[in-house]
Amino acid sequence: MIKKYYLLSPGPTPVPEKVLAKAALPIIHHRSAEFSDAFMEMTEGMQYIFQTKNDVYTLTSSGTGAMETAIVNLLSPGDKIITINGGKFGERWGQIARVYGIEVVEIIVDWGTALSLEKLEETLKANPDAKAVFTQLSETSTGSVYDVKGYAEVVSKTDAILVVDGISGLGAAKCPMDEWKINVLLTGSQKSLMIPPGLAFISFDDKAWKLVESSTLPKYYFDMKKARKSLAKRTTPYTPAVSLVYQQAEAIKLIKEQTIEGILEHHAILGKATREAVKAMGLELFSKVPGNILTSVKTPEGVDGKKLVKTMQSKYLAYISGAQDPMKGKFFRIAHLGYMGAFDVITALTALEMALLDEGYKLELGKGVAMAQKILREEWK
Amino acid sequence: MIKKYYLLSPGPTPVPEKVLAKAALPIIHHRSAEFSDAFMEMTEGMQYIFQTKNDVYTLTSSGTGAMETAIVNLLSPGDKIITINGGKFGERWGQIARVYGIEVVEIIVDWGTALSLEKLEETLKANPDAKAVFTQLSETSTGSVYDVKGYAEVVSKTDAILVVDGISGLGAAKCPMDEWKINVLLTGSQKSLMIPPGLAFISFDDKAWKLVESSTLPKYYFDMKKARKSLAKRTTPYTPAVSLVYQQAEAIKLIKEQTIEGILEHHAILGKATREAVKAMGLELFSKVPGNILTSVKTPEGVDGKKLVKTMQSKYLAYISGAQDPMKGKFFRIAHLGYMGAFDVITALTALEMALLDEGYKLELGKGVAMAQKILREEWK
Repeated sequence: MIKKYYLLSPGPTPVPEKVLAKAALPIIHHRSAEFSDAFMEMTEGMQYIFQTKNDVYTLTSSGTGAMETAIVNLLSPGDKIITINGGKFGERWGQIARVYGIEVVEIIVDWGTALSLEKLEETLKANPDAKAVFTQLSETSTGSVYDVKGYAEVVSKTDAILVVDGISGLGAAKCPMDEWKINVLLTGSQKSLMIPPGLAFISFDDKAWKLVESSTLPKYYFDMKKARKSLAKRTTPYTPAVSLVYQQAEAIKLIKEQTIEGILEHHAILGKATREAVKAMGLELFSKVPGNILTSVKTPEGVDGKKLVKTMQSKYLAYISGAQDPMKGKFFRIAHLGYMGAFDVITALTALEMALLDEGYKLELGKGVAMAQKILREEWK
Repeated sequence: MIKKYYLLSPGPTPVPEKVLAKAALPIIHHRSAEFSDAFMEMTEGMQYIFQTKNDVYTLTSSGTGAMETAIVNLLSPGDKIITINGGKFGERWGQIARVYGIEVVEIIVDWGTALSLEKLEETLKANPDAKAVFTQLSETSTGSVYDVKGYAEVVSKTDAILVVDGISGLGAAKCPMDEWKINVLLTGSQKSLMIPPGLAFISFDDKAWKLVESSTLPKYYFDMKKARKSLAKRTTPYTPAVSLVYQQAEAIKLIKEQTIEGILEHHAILGKATREAVKAMGLELFSKVPGNILTSVKTPEGVDGKKLVKTMQSKYLAYISGAQDPMKGKFFRIAHLGYMGAFDVITALTALEMALLDEGYKLELGKGVAMAQKILREEWK
């Protein structure tokens, strides 16, 4: 049969055709006035997505680069921070910080659960010298969405700041930076921002800027004081990924047409359809706090979880994601993120039913799909 | 919700991403040696698809241009021809011929049925002066596939030639030009050839060339004697659509990787899955001789056929086709053609179930989809 590949993982996500086409535009010089116009259009659009009046800085890097940018610009050697570790990306905050000699108070949260506000308050009280709390909006490794609004309320009552990794979450889960008083928010381009990997974005509020001013950790490429000076001149300190900037500007147009509220609702419908469909297949959700970015599903008993994912990816070319170490094989992840539509969810679910049968799970074909159809049809907008 | 558009009509069909990207190559001059190389690579690839040793000529036109090319190059004023009219495209043969003062013996065939070999023999016997028989391989307006092999056997016993419109059929229904002794075969680029509209292809065998030599109908752009001279010099008489030639060369690579046999089998699986799925929804096939290019399905009683198609196209953005005049509203057409895969069929069927419910038809969601899943899984290769 014809090989047709479906990207159903939580990043990179499919890129709309109109956005793809922008990569074929001529690469103009990044110091030209013409490029500055495109760059500023994108930057202002990103403020709409961040829902902030703060500057948003563009990095030519992956999302991890933006995480490191936060650490190296906010902290100084010997500083103490609190990180919320409920999965691979929460763990990463601690890994980066320790490389730079930062003292890390790591709140370990069971994968698929969320930290309570009480526990966060307690930890802050026990560590009044902590400079910052680092969290995810959406923990991509489990599909959990955290109560960032609540975390921000708790943290704002202290001297610490809240740093939010919105890499897979921003644009698919509600996260208005200014309204929720988030001090630092960052994201990457290849998730709900609908463009290929390669750009990341970060924004700091005034409380965070005070830390930036006094930070002494070493940095050069990721130096945000330089980025601020450059942005005032409508540019970046170093060469940006020109074609990705064009693409991001175009993708923001599509997002603006839908509005932030419309995009969130879209994700809510796809998330609900996916969750109810897998339950109708007799499967169990892995996360107790699932968001609408991706759905993590426990591998049913008697099925080899790694083989199931391989069958989905290699036989049906429906590229969902497995779980990461140490949970490999225990669950799998179906994304419904960015430029994925109702029929991408249907593709994932149809292939999943077929793959489950292949791997020896007893189920009635079409049952989960029918549940998704029912929800999609009822909620169709 | 995010607007995501699915092309599920019998042309234009989806273009593979690798093929789309070729449109962004620089437009080199069409008389350069570099372009000639690309053009000849495509031309030789087209011989593989036509399964012929004859030259295949490239036209920058739609498929209808290739139909007119056949008429004006084979015939002379006052000539008589036989056309098989079992739908919109069979009818078109007669329309073109009459414009040029050709006498047309039109065999009217009920839409969705096929002409018997006996009836064809009879008509040829009654019209021994007929220069040619004009047929479709696949009548796109109904999804019927004709017995071209049988027609060729019948016609080859006479002085007449057989001209086959393979526009929607070639590459999705078996049609080896040389083996079946087809005298003229033509097709268009936007169906199973997997590129955008704009190119058409036509090939003549020696018996047909005799008619071309003596034809006196007026022609300039479509003059095949000029095309033959140009092809000997590795080029076309007039400027070809350069970017489409690149794209066609790339698409042929994909087709060759699959092999003709593999591509036919792919279409056979998708066709079977679609037919059985709509039957499982309680619907009836329209054509009595359905092929694997598209499936025409009768509008069930109590449902407004035009509204159903509109709901599919405008609400679910699953762009299937309605029936054409005079059958508008009576049936609809789901294509599974070219670069459409198993999950495109699933998308069409899922949306169809939802749209049928919207339009008041009673059905159980997921039932047709489950049938398609069953067949696709069993036959998956």
